[in-house]
Amino acid sequence: MRSGERVQAQWLNKNQQRIWRAYLLGSARLSERLDDDLRQFGIDLGEYEILVCLEEASERRVRMSELTEAVHQSRSRLTHTIARMERSGLVTRRNCPTDRRGVWAQLTDAGFELLKTAAPSHVEAVRKNFVEAIRGEDFTALGRAFDAVLAVDGQRLDES
Amino acid sequence: MRSGERVQAQWLNKNQQRIWRAYLLGSARLSERLDDDLRQFGIDLGEYEILVCLEEASERRVRMSELTEAVHQSRSRLTHTIARMERSGLVTRRNCPTDRRGVWAQLTDAGFELLKTAAPSHVEAVRKNFVEAIRGEDFTALGRAFDAVLAVDGQRLDES
Repeated sequence: MRSGERVQAQWLNKNQQRIWRAYLLGSARLSERLDDDLRQFGIDLGEYEILVCLEEASERRVRMSELTEAVHQSRSRLTHTIARMERSGLVTRRNCPTDRRGVWAQLTDAGFELLKTAAPSHVEAVRKNFVEAIRGEDFTALGRAFDAVLAVDGQRLDES
Repeated sequence: MRSGERVQAQWLNKNQQRIWRAYLLGSARLSERLDDDLRQFGIDLGEYEILVCLEEASERRVRMSELTEAVHQSRSRLTHTIARMERSGLVTRRNCPTDRRGVWAQLTDAGFELLKTAAPSHVEAVRKNFVEAIRGEDFTALGRAFDAVLAVDGQRLDES
């Protein structure tokens, strides 16, 4: 709002607004670049994160409800994404043997192979566009900043 | 990748990985919280950003091609979003009088009113979950960090 005075009074100051916009634009561009890189492997960043999450899990499978917490997608979007990945043969969904209500997502061998193939290029892109682009002390501060964002409603990053 | 040695060699170290994941999770949660807040006004963060961009423009209209640069959406997603906003009466699309190929998005009075109504609550949510959640020097460092991310391919944030 440039000139709505009533609103202006509660708005961010110029410096806060500049940083907020740098974050919005920078994080959007970063996602685009990582998606562009992963397109050669037929997946996007959200799908890559799911592959990593499954690969790290015991028996390479995770309950759908836990996957929602672990990755960065809403439940409805995740269901959509998993269905697409199942059609591509990267994951399967199966009922949990010990919990009638639970549905697991399971990494397939093809999904594991794709992750192995995509990982070096993806890591290189994360390095180039994020880790090595940002000065060391700013990178450390950025970690503290997002820990603080997560802590607003009592969340924290699980160490794995 | 936990134990794929060939890949591991090029992977991030534990601290870099932790910060990368804090960023991924924190930024996703932040978007969710801002979307949750805006839902009471029938819009999401992407639509809010479009309203702001149009409101700040001369005659409250922007060429669609310029809107793609200014906001944080791909061209196909933006077309989708603008069509939805047009159905809601928040914007109209019209041909540019001086450029036969150009299409403009124009803020309607209803769109301007909605922005005025939504802004105080949105700003409050940005303050609570971002600006005031993060320690002052980390906030400044975060601004430098995303300036650096934008600079990787020669972009910079336009000062307005």
